[in-house]
Amino acid sequence: MPVAPVRWENDRLAILDQTRLPGETVWLYPDTAEEVRDAIRALRVRGAPAIGVCAAWGVALALTRQRPESAERALETVRDAVSILRTARPTAVNLFWALDRVERAARETAGGKASDITESVLREAAAIQQEDEAMCEAIGRHGVSLIPDGGGVLTHCNAGSLATAGIGTALAPLYMAHASGRRFRVYADETRPLLQGARLTAWELRQAGLDVTVLCDNMAAVLMASRRVDMVIVGADRIASNGDTANKIGTYGLAVLARAHDIPFYVAAPSSTFDLTLDNGSQIPIEERDPREVTSWQGIQIAPDGVHAFNPAFDVTPAELITAIITERGIIQSPDRARIAAMFREVSS
Amino acid sequence: MPVAPVRWENDRLAILDQTRLPGETVWLYPDTAEEVRDAIRALRVRGAPAIGVCAAWGVALALTRQRPESAERALETVRDAVSILRTARPTAVNLFWALDRVERAARETAGGKASDITESVLREAAAIQQEDEAMCEAIGRHGVSLIPDGGGVLTHCNAGSLATAGIGTALAPLYMAHASGRRFRVYADETRPLLQGARLTAWELRQAGLDVTVLCDNMAAVLMASRRVDMVIVGADRIASNGDTANKIGTYGLAVLARAHDIPFYVAAPSSTFDLTLDNGSQIPIEERDPREVTSWQGIQIAPDGVHAFNPAFDVTPAELITAIITERGIIQSPDRARIAAMFREVSS
Repeated sequence: MPVAPVRWENDRLAILDQTRLPGETVWLYPDTAEEVRDAIRALRVRGAPAIGVCAAWGVALALTRQRPESAERALETVRDAVSILRTARPTAVNLFWALDRVERAARETAGGKASDITESVLREAAAIQQEDEAMCEAIGRHGVSLIPDGGGVLTHCNAGSLATAGIGTALAPLYMAHASGRRFRVYADETRPLLQGARLTAWELRQAGLDVTVLCDNMAAVLMASRRVDMVIVGADRIASNGDTANKIGTYGLAVLARAHDIPFYVAAPSSTFDLTLDNGSQIPIEERDPREVTSWQGIQIAPDGVHAFNPAFDVTPAELITAIITERGIIQSPDRARIAAMFREVSS
Repeated sequence: MPVAPVRWENDRLAILDQTRLPGETVWLYPDTAEEVRDAIRALRVRGAPAIGVCAAWGVALALTRQRPESAERALETVRDAVSILRTARPTAVNLFWALDRVERAARETAGGKASDITESVLREAAAIQQEDEAMCEAIGRHGVSLIPDGGGVLTHCNAGSLATAGIGTALAPLYMAHASGRRFRVYADETRPLLQGARLTAWELRQAGLDVTVLCDNMAAVLMASRRVDMVIVGADRIASNGDTANKIGTYGLAVLARAHDIPFYVAAPSSTFDLTLDNGSQIPIEERDPREVTSWQGIQIAPDGVHAFNPAFDVTPAELITAIITERGIIQSPDRARIAAMFREVSS
């Protein structure tokens, strides 16, 4: 079983510091919502589903540490923690979705005691985590038949166990295919600037015994041209109601290249990644990060002083470049507004 | 005037160690053809035209250091040095072209003295260097009108003064446009794994006062989609007779992306880069370099143990994705076999 990057154990929130992987395995034990926010901002925990789970536990942490004396103070603690954690990162919608869930659970708690609210929030955070684990399994089940025996699968960034509470989103079908005895090669884009592909995806897939080849992002095109890639599969940070998908920078280029080489391009994400309030991808806020992430690495300067750097953390892939979106509820082929709406209708009915 | 990375001065060959840029400016003074070959292999000097110039001086160096006593021994020294230097790198054809030139100059030397042969080789190496400088100027003149005032130009790797004996190939039109007062923004792909774009292109353009923005290779697609790029211009390491072009890994992907975004894609290279013995790009040998260039950086491990890495140094861009090839002899629009043959015919007639 792959490692879970966020855990609640013995009344502590444990976060695996992913900035130290693959060199070191360091666990962090934050004590406040601010520390949880900072860990998310610094990408010590990352991946849209894991950020949601972690933020929910961040609210629970504020309550268990501050031990408010009245229900009113408890709700205030929840509101404060939620507003702190909402500022952690702007793009992944799972963060807001998870915070809304724990806040609602707190508000709707019956009984007049602070401890009831704390219990509610703890239960809700645990539910979010368990649902996330089950969601990964379901994505894996829906996607596993796509994985080609003897073929090659290209992925970008990390949408694996380190990005979720379970076996990942994009990587879930790979884990399941591997477990069922299928043999295939995984190509992991290193994913500049922070190298989540080389550091995290390669690490967790190797730990699980899969065959992984790391490549620089600019090598994906020639890899596709050489016919070694049968499919591309990536995660998502936010999906608009028309299917336009925000994901790690570089995803859009991969989708254009996949189309040019006639290779299917899949997005794997839980339904909590959809933001049906957005008409299309142009409305998704894109986080622009510190240029120094590009111009230096591990404290060593790469680019000379005086140059600008461009550093958007995400890009948006138009729905028409996406072969299908794999969710825990099933596969949406050729995603568009109508098919996405239909999936959400089926469930609510 | 930009820095010349290879110089012959006071009977010494001076090579600027580009692996140390932009942090340090270190000059190397090799004493043997082997040391020159090793400097080329280790990319201390790189860029197809600069490799040619450096290799020619490497033969001259062998002669001036070994001081052979007879013409026969001098020719033997030349043959040995040429055969050592030919193994430096496989893809750039300018290397073989320059070595063939100095070898021919040695063989065709009139008079029976070793010192005559040394003089011939020194003269030929100096001629290759001067021609390269003039070639850069001519490419600049032919390409300068393409540079959009107020626009954006994307380049990949380094095809500038550090890659040549002059003002570069792909960067020559940019230097000339800047000198003539045109203002535009240069976007430099960092160019993994060895970051020649961030380290070298950004450095030399900043030194010359141009406005440079560095980006990770995987950000080029979204930059194009945002309409900030009006043209792409890159160098070349070898061009087949049908126009298929080998250049730094990542070039092919950029060309596919440029086509998808309807952005013109230019290759700038001297005519010595054409290899008319090759029918098409599939015949160009592609150097596969040490996987550790991908899995570690500056001695720090990026990817975990046990993963494979893919590390081709070059890729081949099919001629149909190239808007035009800018050479010192003029521009070949929509390059194909017939137009390329026509350019070479014009000159030889």
